[in-house]
Amino acid sequence: MPNIRAPRIHLGPDHENTLTDGIERGGGVLVPLADADAVVWAQGPDMFPAELPDSVRWVQLPSAGVESWLAAGLVDHRRIWTSAAGAYAGSVAEHATLLLLAGVRGLAEQARAASWRKAEFDARVGTLRGATVAIVGCGGIGRAMIPLLTAFGAQVLAVTRSGLPVPGAAETVDATRTAEIWSRADHFVIAAPATADTAHLVDADTLARMKPTSWIVNVARGALIDTEALVRALGDNTIGGAALDVTDPEPLPAGHPLWTLPNALITPHIANPATGLTGALAEHVRANVERFAAGEELLAVIDTERGY
Amino acid sequence: MPNIRAPRIHLGPDHENTLTDGIERGGGVLVPLADADAVVWAQGPDMFPAELPDSVRWVQLPSAGVESWLAAGLVDHRRIWTSAAGAYAGSVAEHATLLLLAGVRGLAEQARAASWRKAEFDARVGTLRGATVAIVGCGGIGRAMIPLLTAFGAQVLAVTRSGLPVPGAAETVDATRTAEIWSRADHFVIAAPATADTAHLVDADTLARMKPTSWIVNVARGALIDTEALVRALGDNTIGGAALDVTDPEPLPAGHPLWTLPNALITPHIANPATGLTGALAEHVRANVERFAAGEELLAVIDTERGY
Repeated sequence: MPNIRAPRIHLGPDHENTLTDGIERGGGVLVPLADADAVVWAQGPDMFPAELPDSVRWVQLPSAGVESWLAAGLVDHRRIWTSAAGAYAGSVAEHATLLLLAGVRGLAEQARAASWRKAEFDARVGTLRGATVAIVGCGGIGRAMIPLLTAFGAQVLAVTRSGLPVPGAAETVDATRTAEIWSRADHFVIAAPATADTAHLVDADTLARMKPTSWIVNVARGALIDTEALVRALGDNTIGGAALDVTDPEPLPAGHPLWTLPNALITPHIANPATGLTGALAEHVRANVERFAAGEELLAVIDTERGY
Repeated sequence: MPNIRAPRIHLGPDHENTLTDGIERGGGVLVPLADADAVVWAQGPDMFPAELPDSVRWVQLPSAGVESWLAAGLVDHRRIWTSAAGAYAGSVAEHATLLLLAGVRGLAEQARAASWRKAEFDARVGTLRGATVAIVGCGGIGRAMIPLLTAFGAQVLAVTRSGLPVPGAAETVDATRTAEIWSRADHFVIAAPATADTAHLVDADTLARMKPTSWIVNVARGALIDTEALVRALGDNTIGGAALDVTDPEPLPAGHPLWTLPNALITPHIANPATGLTGALAEHVRANVERFAAGEELLAVIDTERGY
């Protein structure tokens, strides 16, 4: 990509101060869509322009997961499209580590108690020390989790598409070997993109291979887990539990068994809270505008074949 | 202390395999009380011998906090007494970090919800990234917390008796300057021993100086916090919240407001669960028997003047 002095960026659908600041700190100037070299889009696909000028060579989307953009057929091959993958990795990694630790130490039940159930709870307190945690889809979030989990004395078994060694992981396996991990790891963090390949990645079969003390954390998309199979496993106590920031269906309806099972912990898709979202996105936009201006490879380029 | 070949150790009140193993791995041999150079005691003070033979030059107690032993007048000056301070530091540090993270990210409320309250909860999700966490009484537990908190991007303000710089802390102040920290730090971990000096260390006055987003974690003893003042601060939302593994009174009675306040999180004194307790104590005993045999200074020697 050629070096561009002060790339002309269209920010849509509305003006937003934090993102404007990110664009300007990256060396960009704000322009109307018709004059733009690039588009930074701050909302979902609904209001996205049906037609983009040919001058637009790059579109920055605001979310890490882009399946709704792909499903809507908006991501064309005439320009580069980037997601916000990685932008929110720090907050999601913090939340996923909290969920795993809460599960392993029994906090889900403890938080709901209204009396001193020490003897009962004491026997169920586990630890991350010495545990092997598999991170399925060890991209930006997973990589941000590795220093956290290793600080607690856990070791990481990373599953990635390429299988190239992930720095800090005790072992990396490629996605074709995912079947191996269910019986090998103590706990599981699901952080893979939602694609046709990953739908119901965790199902009755994989759940049956886990240890009775295993916790599953999902911070990716609800559809990666077969919810009915999970509810059965939790009800039968064949696994330790599940801590889910994303669910299927989502929002999880009131009255769903996952709200009341003692070994389930639900947080309402807040690993990456809206409060911190714009700031993290602005930083990602700044970095990408800078790279665009310098003609460098952009962060989080979407591959429509892979689906993320 | 002179070098002793195979020190003769009495283990009381009962035989316990893990501790026997710890004593023997440390180079000790088990003997009846009358023949003992040292006593390793595995229970509370109730069944402790009223009189110890003069040959007993060292007593190892099983808990990190020893105020009940001091109150009972059992800790004499005729021999060395050691506590288990430090033995359980890893597990307590893991739990304290979980409690702080759970508080800051709003997990206490989220865990109790039975419906998808995303908009309400999203706005209250905080982060440890960039936060300053004061550890009041930064001994073994606090030192074990420092690598955990720094991995999350927090910095530590350590309060110790001596004020000597604690490795890894951004700043260390001595206990006479404790008053400074309440308005300076974002969050507080109470890990100091329970002594006359530390009773109600957190009271209405110190609570009033904290930020409205500050969380307090207590993994020390309940008496370090004025419970009534804390309940008022939580009810008035003048602080972020409190996550307590120890309470005053303890056990916390059913119906106590701390069970139901949305910004309070109670765990029933399980930071150091009994399940992992004997193993951790055995390792501490092994190390101390080895030191006793070698005539070296013992770990966690109790100072009756300081009270721990």
